[in-house]
Amino acid sequence: MQRGAGQGDPPQFDEVFRARLADLFAWRRDVRRFKPDLVEPSIIEALVRTAARGPSVGNSQPWRFVSVETPSARNVVLANFQACNAAALACYEGERAARYANLKLSGLREAPVHLAVFCDHATDAGAGLGRKTMPEMLDYSVVAAVHTLWLAARAEGLGVGWVSILDPVEVCRALAVPPAWKLVAYLCVGRPLEEHLDPELERHDWQAHIAENDQLHHR
Amino acid sequence: MQRGAGQGDPPQFDEVFRARLADLFAWRRDVRRFKPDLVEPSIIEALVRTAARGPSVGNSQPWRFVSVETPSARNVVLANFQACNAAALACYEGERAARYANLKLSGLREAPVHLAVFCDHATDAGAGLGRKTMPEMLDYSVVAAVHTLWLAARAEGLGVGWVSILDPVEVCRALAVPPAWKLVAYLCVGRPLEEHLDPELERHDWQAHIAENDQLHHR
Repeated sequence: MQRGAGQGDPPQFDEVFRARLADLFAWRRDVRRFKPDLVEPSIIEALVRTAARGPSVGNSQPWRFVSVETPSARNVVLANFQACNAAALACYEGERAARYANLKLSGLREAPVHLAVFCDHATDAGAGLGRKTMPEMLDYSVVAAVHTLWLAARAEGLGVGWVSILDPVEVCRALAVPPAWKLVAYLCVGRPLEEHLDPELERHDWQAHIAENDQLHHR
Repeated sequence: MQRGAGQGDPPQFDEVFRARLADLFAWRRDVRRFKPDLVEPSIIEALVRTAARGPSVGNSQPWRFVSVETPSARNVVLANFQACNAAALACYEGERAARYANLKLSGLREAPVHLAVFCDHATDAGAGLGRKTMPEMLDYSVVAAVHTLWLAARAEGLGVGWVSILDPVEVCRALAVPPAWKLVAYLCVGRPLEEHLDPELERHDWQAHIAENDQLHHR
């Protein structure tokens, strides 16, 4: 096994670690119910540094993390969510609409930390490598960073909820980010009020697990 | 702390686990140099089941994993990569072109396992929840599944390389997948020939780490 000079020995992961990692994946959850407890800024800063270890196309590192803190910015995002959620509800009928209306779909009011995560489409980093035929790889790189942060947060006992019932252009405007930044994720972060092994949308009869999607196809 | 009946106690993650998880993120790597050793199909099947624990918008579970096994299918993908890579090289000039030409950008010839990962845009699962204003969330859900698989594979001592220098429509045609399946990732999987703490694109002077992207912005 070759390795670079001065990099230390590559880690060997054992059964104990793999079992705990499986627990992490299984208990991750999309969290919408938070305790009001504040989270130390240093923890969030460390999570962002960890997220930046995620893979990125051409090593382009296109993620941009914004902590949304002012009441005025948060209120704009909350109003945006409420409008989009009302519009979404209006698309359902009967029993589906009733179930949708009963779902808690964001923790925007309660979460002590709001993180908006953007993809910088103006970056020169990576010099376009790996993006010519699949330009969406730049956005995908940001998704991997978000997922890295999510897992690291859960390992710290923090819950993360990804809110996508938002008009992304309005969020960009409200946060006055550079024009080439595209909103990829809006995250609520905080101590979870509850912990569950099953997704909230399974528990509340919105969408069951689909076992056939766990299967490998062959060609 | 509330929890659902019969779910077992939520796991408590400790410092030891967090340190190992940090190692996993740090040593993950995009692998393009593989040993020829075969990988047990049961390991790949387990990795796909783990990937299906990833988050998905509306619990839509839109990932579709295809193991590409026949020489004819693999040859079409390899030829596709070679054509796209030649076209990409032609876009660079001088020193950049020389550096691009020297990079090893896929392990398609050596990797014992090829996984094509698709997003099923025809799925009804999730009933559209969370996708009305950000329809890209469906593809992002597949990216999170890919990243879950990547981390789980590394914990098993397996390397994963994501090849995006491909014409995705041609890959769909070659693998004869349903028309609503969109290619999100083409992965090479196998035992890594080398292990490194630094990304190959940093080591080979393509793109350095950008420390400012690890920083949190505030609004």
